[in-house]
Amino acid sequence: MAQAIKKYQKKAEYSFTFGAFPTFELLKNRPEAVRGVYVHSRMDSPETFEKLKSLCDTAGVRLTISDKQVERLREKDSVLIIGVFDKYRNTLRQDTDHIVLVNPSDMGNLGTILRTCLGFAIHDVAIIEPAADVFNPKVVRSSMGALFRQQVMLFPDFATYEQQYGQNRTLYPFVLHGKNVLQELKRPEKERFALIFGNEATGLPPIFESMEHSVTIRQSPEVDSFNLSLAVGMAVYKFTEGDPLS
Amino acid sequence: MAQAIKKYQKKAEYSFTFGAFPTFELLKNRPEAVRGVYVHSRMDSPETFEKLKSLCDTAGVRLTISDKQVERLREKDSVLIIGVFDKYRNTLRQDTDHIVLVNPSDMGNLGTILRTCLGFAIHDVAIIEPAADVFNPKVVRSSMGALFRQQVMLFPDFATYEQQYGQNRTLYPFVLHGKNVLQELKRPEKERFALIFGNEATGLPPIFESMEHSVTIRQSPEVDSFNLSLAVGMAVYKFTEGDPLS
Repeated sequence: MAQAIKKYQKKAEYSFTFGAFPTFELLKNRPEAVRGVYVHSRMDSPETFEKLKSLCDTAGVRLTISDKQVERLREKDSVLIIGVFDKYRNTLRQDTDHIVLVNPSDMGNLGTILRTCLGFAIHDVAIIEPAADVFNPKVVRSSMGALFRQQVMLFPDFATYEQQYGQNRTLYPFVLHGKNVLQELKRPEKERFALIFGNEATGLPPIFESMEHSVTIRQSPEVDSFNLSLAVGMAVYKFTEGDPLS
Repeated sequence: MAQAIKKYQKKAEYSFTFGAFPTFELLKNRPEAVRGVYVHSRMDSPETFEKLKSLCDTAGVRLTISDKQVERLREKDSVLIIGVFDKYRNTLRQDTDHIVLVNPSDMGNLGTILRTCLGFAIHDVAIIEPAADVFNPKVVRSSMGALFRQQVMLFPDFATYEQQYGQNRTLYPFVLHGKNVLQELKRPEKERFALIFGNEATGLPPIFESMEHSVTIRQSPEVDSFNLSLAVGMAVYKFTEGDPLS
């Protein structure tokens, strides 16, 4: 198997974690998906090695010391630990709150959003394609491994999401000219919510503005709009403000 | 003058805007600081050119078409408009709310924070050195020109800020283990506030935790901390939630 693994490609069936922390997160949260872990001989922290070894043992994953493999797969010379994992599929849950990202295009943003949502105990994220490649190692890195704690599900279009998960759920699309203002909203008492965000550059299509619960973040006229990860952060903060989060 | 201008250096007395939008913002908000504007002959939007010309005329700024100058100064081939401006100094106002960034190190974050603050009508930002170079064109770009609408003032240490601007102001340092939780806070009714944030990697020094109004953003135990620009965004959102912003 080892010789077959190549540098990351979107079409490949596997992807990578680079570095100790995301590899720990992978082993802890998706042990069944891990193909193997490779460590460079220059990795000189016994503490990190012990933790990695212990997690690999628990997960039934093989840990291989191979400078060649690490050097071949890594994208930066500083990387000394690589996890190889099979891309997996998730489904969302019906009885949880959701975040829906329509055509997100920036991998750094995507990772940051996955991490921020996790920080507010949101664990179900729908992604409407076309979208940035969620399994790209850049997303893993910018999510700081939060990807592995999220249920992320891809949909070909918003209608498919709505059909499968829109029942008994209030849909809040975030738009430039919404019918509601985030600052004045109360979250629904009886229903679950989905907070819906558009592409970084183009936002949501105009049809979303006419939805009953469309939302705008009130802002100074000196600024056009907030960047996507900031908007998601503020919205998730607001909607979970009364939650214990633990 | 023209031949003396070099690519950006931290020590230089001038800096640059790359592209139309930040150059418009520069001309509108800091006309007195502009040395000149250079346009490449491949800039083929008459609309953009007219707007630029009009802003230059109003500001009394010379607009020069010079492929050589643009090609020499730009950092990406796609840049066709460059503004050259003198670095300027600001002071903060006593009767406004402040954001205080202690040792911010990432230029992208710094620009994003300046823009987010502007979005919530916060116009006074203190930066405690050592810190990322606020006039670097990368900050200008990530702020989308918001830098020019902010009063940004540098301080050698936090004590100097506190001495000059700490009177009649409640200081809220954001820390990992604060005495208050953002979600439950009310902003002070009579006093101005300063929201204080530490470095991306190391946060604020421990002494800030013991301050009366130290704040933590309540979050899921699954996440260590939020990234700096997200934390600032949520905090500023919360503290200005009741404001009209216009």
